[in-house]
Amino acid sequence: MKQTEKQTEQVKQTPQKLNFMNDYNSVGHPNVLRALADASAAKFPGYGTDAETGRAVAAVRALIQNEAADVHFLMGGTQTNLTAIAAFLRPHEAVIAPANAHINVHETGAIEAVGHKILTVASNDGKLRADDIRAVCARHGGDEHMVAPRLVFLSQSSELGTLYSMAELREIRAVCDALGLYLYVDGARLAVALTSPRNDVSLPALAALADAFYLGGTKNGLLLGEALVIANPKLTADFRYLIKQKGGLLAKGFLLGLQFCALLENGLYFELGIHANDMALRLREGLVKRGFTFFVDSPTNQIFPILPERAAEALAANVLYEVWEREPNVTGGGKGKTAIRLVTSWNTDAAEIEAFFERLDRAMRQ
Amino acid sequence: MKQTEKQTEQVKQTPQKLNFMNDYNSVGHPNVLRALADASAAKFPGYGTDAETGRAVAAVRALIQNEAADVHFLMGGTQTNLTAIAAFLRPHEAVIAPANAHINVHETGAIEAVGHKILTVASNDGKLRADDIRAVCARHGGDEHMVAPRLVFLSQSSELGTLYSMAELREIRAVCDALGLYLYVDGARLAVALTSPRNDVSLPALAALADAFYLGGTKNGLLLGEALVIANPKLTADFRYLIKQKGGLLAKGFLLGLQFCALLENGLYFELGIHANDMALRLREGLVKRGFTFFVDSPTNQIFPILPERAAEALAANVLYEVWEREPNVTGGGKGKTAIRLVTSWNTDAAEIEAFFERLDRAMRQ
Amino acid sequence: MKQTEKQTEQVKQTPQKLNFMNDYNSVGHPNVLRALADASAAKFPGYGTDAETGRAVAAVRALIQNEAADVHFLMGGTQTNLTAIAAFLRPHEAVIAPANAHINVHETGAIEAVGHKILTVASNDGKLRADDIRAVCARHGGDEHMVAPRLVFLSQSSELGTLYSMAELREIRAVCDALGLYLYVDGARLAVALTSPRNDVSLPALAALADAFYLGGTKNGLLLGEALVIANPKLTADFRYLIKQKGGLLAKGFLLGLQFCALLENGLYFELGIHANDMALRLREGLVKRGFTFFVDSPTNQIFPILPERAAEALAANVLYEVWEREPNVTGGGKGKTAIRLVTSWNTDAAEIEAFFERLDRAMRQ
Amino acid sequence: MKQTEKQTEQVKQTPQKLNFMNDYNSVGHPNVLRALADASAAKFPGYGTDAETGRAVAAVRALIQNEAADVHFLMGGTQTNLTAIAAFLRPHEAVIAPANAHINVHETGAIEAVGHKILTVASNDGKLRADDIRAVCARHGGDEHMVAPRLVFLSQSSELGTLYSMAELREIRAVCDALGLYLYVDGARLAVALTSPRNDVSLPALAALADAFYLGGTKNGLLLGEALVIANPKLTADFRYLIKQKGGLLAKGFLLGLQFCALLENGLYFELGIHANDMALRLREGLVKRGFTFFVDSPTNQIFPILPERAAEALAANVLYEVWEREPNVTGGGKGKTAIRLVTSWNTDAAEIEAFFERLDRAMRQ
Repeated sequence: MKQTEKQTEQVKQTPQKLNFMNDYNSVGHPNVLRALADASAAKFPGYGTDAETGRAVAAVRALIQNEAADVHFLMGGTQTNLTAIAAFLRPHEAVIAPANAHINVHETGAIEAVGHKILTVASNDGKLRADDIRAVCARHGGDEHMVAPRLVFLSQSSELGTLYSMAELREIRAVCDALGLYLYVDGARLAVALTSPRNDVSLPALAALADAFYLGGTKNGLLLGEALVIANPKLTADFRYLIKQKGGLLAKGFLLGLQFCALLENGLYFELGIHANDMALRLREGLVKRGFTFFVDSPTNQIFPILPERAAEALAANVLYEVWEREPNVTGGGKGKTAIRLVTSWNTDAAEIEAFFERLDRAMRQ
Repeated sequence: MKQTEKQTEQVKQTPQKLNFMNDYNSVGHPNVLRALADASAAKFPGYGTDAETGRAVAAVRALIQNEAADVHFLMGGTQTNLTAIAAFLRPHEAVIAPANAHINVHETGAIEAVGHKILTVASNDGKLRADDIRAVCARHGGDEHMVAPRLVFLSQSSELGTLYSMAELREIRAVCDALGLYLYVDGARLAVALTSPRNDVSLPALAALADAFYLGGTKNGLLLGEALVIANPKLTADFRYLIKQKGGLLAKGFLLGLQFCALLENGLYFELGIHANDMALRLREGLVKRGFTFFVDSPTNQIFPILPERAAEALAANVLYEVWEREPNVTGGGKGKTAIRLVTSWNTDAAEIEAFFERLDRAMRQ
Repeated sequence: MKQTEKQTEQVKQTPQKLNFMNDYNSVGHPNVLRALADASAAKFPGYGTDAETGRAVAAVRALIQNEAADVHFLMGGTQTNLTAIAAFLRPHEAVIAPANAHINVHETGAIEAVGHKILTVASNDGKLRADDIRAVCARHGGDEHMVAPRLVFLSQSSELGTLYSMAELREIRAVCDALGLYLYVDGARLAVALTSPRNDVSLPALAALADAFYLGGTKNGLLLGEALVIANPKLTADFRYLIKQKGGLLAKGFLLGLQFCALLENGLYFELGIHANDMALRLREGLVKRGFTFFVDSPTNQIFPILPERAAEALAANVLYEVWEREPNVTGGGKGKTAIRLVTSWNTDAAEIEAFFERLDRAMRQ
Repeated sequence: MKQTEKQTEQVKQTPQKLNFMNDYNSVGHPNVLRALADASAAKFPGYGTDAETGRAVAAVRALIQNEAADVHFLMGGTQTNLTAIAAFLRPHEAVIAPANAHINVHETGAIEAVGHKILTVASNDGKLRADDIRAVCARHGGDEHMVAPRLVFLSQSSELGTLYSMAELREIRAVCDALGLYLYVDGARLAVALTSPRNDVSLPALAALADAFYLGGTKNGLLLGEALVIANPKLTADFRYLIKQKGGLLAKGFLLGLQFCALLENGLYFELGIHANDMALRLREGLVKRGFTFFVDSPTNQIFPILPERAAEALAANVLYEVWEREPNVTGGGKGKTAIRLVTSWNTDAAEIEAFFERLDRAMRQ
């Protein structure tokens, strides 16, 4: 990857901060950009009615091994979540989600703005348990003075980088079946989940378990774009109307089709996930070697080491990261500890990892 | 423009249909794509907090000659309209718009979905008159059993390619001031309006008259993107919350910043509008020479010739266009007439115009 | 009716204005008040789960000859309309209604506030035609850029006091069946419709034609209350959740049950409608005798005579009425004419009619 | 009170269940019914524009000692809460409430249905603490990816019958001022709060502290009705539009005016609260004497004794009450304990209290 080499040079030569802030910090993977450039002389029909989008739909269906699935390309995660939930639920129906779910905390009330309550469950590791779902439903059963729980929302990987195992998902699916709930999986970071060494949930298996889910592109090399899969045929009717109404029907829909073709047709989607996980593993190993502990044990591209508060502050002068929790909420930490989040991505390279440790070691000495 | 030359070759050699369907049928202008490619090694902060976006904001402010204006970049027109209206109005407040306005007809009820009624006024040419606004307000004044009109929505150029003159806009502004209304201008096609030979409304003048408006990028060479200007400081508070809530806060906001820099910093925005208008003028002149009349007299990149129904059908085999009206609604037409819409764009070239007339002449002979 | 006699005395003795403003201007029919007083020592379960509400449901079902119908009691018309439409439609689905429908003009955007667009059809007499419905659907068919028409809203009697005939309703029903639309009938003034001499639509017939409708109580002798009938079993699921969510589930639901028992179990509902129509007929006959014409030919309790503007103004000093239309909208009127609305009710009595004509004659002489 | 004597007879003679289920189980206080009957010959203007409503507004203003307050009469609590919050907040703004608040648990998502998120705080006694508010705001400050907390919702008395002291309310007000929050008080049961022996918050004091609050009528002797006071002039604009839009503008608004005059003009409002508290005190004392403990220490008309599970079940055959909590959530209880809720009201009489204890003693012996 020549592009990454150039970036590495840049990192070495300039005193700029290392960026472990998130996985959407650069334009997009060179192959994706090239796909756009290669198509620049062509003219396309609008709103995703073009042939490239058709190819991208076929690519998704092939990967999930479900030729009948409804597939839609949207521009971002919040948009995808709010559109799907607005389409799937009646006004009195509610979502069950972990309290730290993205839709509950970091989407500015997007779900409530389309009219639906989120019933939350406390979760240390970002995951929902089957028992949590049962408990929420037991409290709400059949009482019209309360909302009716109807859709289980979970993220794979979760907000804390953790993974649901196949056994866990099967149990959740069984609860959903028993209680008449839809299962929706936010897959903004599904690529790192699928390619994590600890993962045992294949993409076809996920597609068979969930009523709907999406494969995130924004956080895995695209300029923008998420591929929503609606596997439950009861939920597909008129979905494009909802996309349009909520402002998500891209005029140049072919841009999403072109990008997803580049990402999905030759395995790039998985390569990029593998790379991000590899880089995270190097971070993790280096941190373990240095004796750090973690806020949560996360096997994907987000890791949460616990640092002495002063070291975290010193490090911030040279490394971009997010402070995740401070005392007294840093379980397993202690006095003056800070849990930080480090995110790797397809565009993180080995030199950046090395540079990170140099800067961390320096921060620890200060 | 090498890219256009290549396209011209393609048009000549291949028997594919000419595309006069719309102005968002290709990836984007080469300069815009180049700006993205050139930035591909860099890392940016998310959600439009980056320096490129800051530069693009500065570019907008310079062009509109208002350093204090609030500027936000969004992904598409429907999204921009629904977000702005949701932010600006209280629940009982309504929009006044021409009946054929995009928000009333072609956004799948997006405005109603965020809770607001659109009070419509019949309009043959896509434009709203000051008297129409007065009449709507007279019917609603102070009666809490009816919605309260609060925002005037118009498009420059309009849905029918027509233009508001400076005198018309001043009169509308005066009515808005007198009646306590906001003036919002949908500028999806503002570039062709500003550069039309018949235009007398400068960008700074528009910015001084409207409470808010947007400069459309999607229909003027960008991959995607609209630049919303909020000139009225009473309307700016917490606007980014609304963008996020409605699903419009692009994670890689810098993509919009980079594109708008390419479009605005060196006059490309105006060049592309001029080109689209030039191509439309050639179409118009050729049609006039051949004796065709028009559904509406439109001085921008959308033109609406009236064809014999059979010729329109024959033409459709070789040219992509939109049927606008059929009998009996084709005023000035007659029996068996069809009004069609032809749209030119920055990527239309002279060879396509020539090819169009060849195919039209052939269709007329059939 | 002793109560009415007392009122008559009052009308004769005091110089107060006669009230033909509306049909909800007094507490309620004495029988209804008595039913409440008689139950004042009892204790009831809340939210309409009581036996009296059960009896009222049975009374409705008996009258409509449909034992399977879902019946709910709500507090007012706007509330009933918005709750039903919110329950029946998905977010992108729209209502078709006459432009002068109550939901479109006089409910402060209540339907839009729950997210739905109203597609309107111009109507001189307050009625919708089957062809109007076909035309609206033809313009919207299958295009996800536009809302999807899904529910036909009409009022029996209409906003202008007119009636749909059985033939008209059958044709509308056929169109609804052909186009997949629900038929909803606002029956705020259904009692005067059913008891009009010109009516040919029985209550069971209406119940068999409409997917849902309501029998208005507020405008027919109750303190408050509307009885919503949902005949289409596809629309009944979880309806009480919607009532509660929209603020319409009365804690003391038994108050509605008690009132509707008093209104429905012994024919009072129809008696009151007959009386209101009788009083309107006397008004009409007296007006015709005096040579007045009407804005619309309405066979129920709302009549719309056209008066010279100066006479209308003089009359207003002694009679409460609503100005309906002024020139130039008074078709069939002429220069300086005003159409006014006179409403009779169960509590209008013959002495008031006499007094009205005295005052009208005096106003004409001024 | 003759009516109550009659009721007492009934209780003694019939084997029907005693009703301690809630405080809205009978038609209404005799004085209130009489006020309606006395006005039955009169005709009124609609929608609360009548003189009786004006008198009721004046009565509220006199009691709260604020002649400038905006006062509106609505039909029920959920309706009042959702209308006020819809009127006061912009789309991205959120409510802070105790997790067991009525709006969070028992209004079927009414607040979310008008678009707003509720940020909840765990609370054992139904009360919110100033520190809770600070903590919620600290987590949300200025981040547009999260909702903006804007309105503090509390109930006086709370869902668990507890009271805020003057000191607590002052501290909450100070936090609201410091953080730019509105303070809204749900006063569905304000009468029992104001008249509790432990209360130190006068009605004028509450009116001076809250931006808005309501005096509940439904649970204090009215057929239906709540009096919303908007003390903050920034929140009053166009409020009647919101009432109408949300379906809460009663056509016969004078019914609310008449009832509130009967309740407020001669002190009945307070008398009824005193009576309900007295009856609750007798229950409490009898329970304490018998050695029962309580789920929460509540000095108003809701009390929460903890019973052995089997006794609770036996009692249910003869007494209507609500099961509040079962093991393991009955703190201070123990194995096989059930916390029940007993509610007294203006219509509870001494004989019912005696009968309750007979039945309780019997249940304990079983």
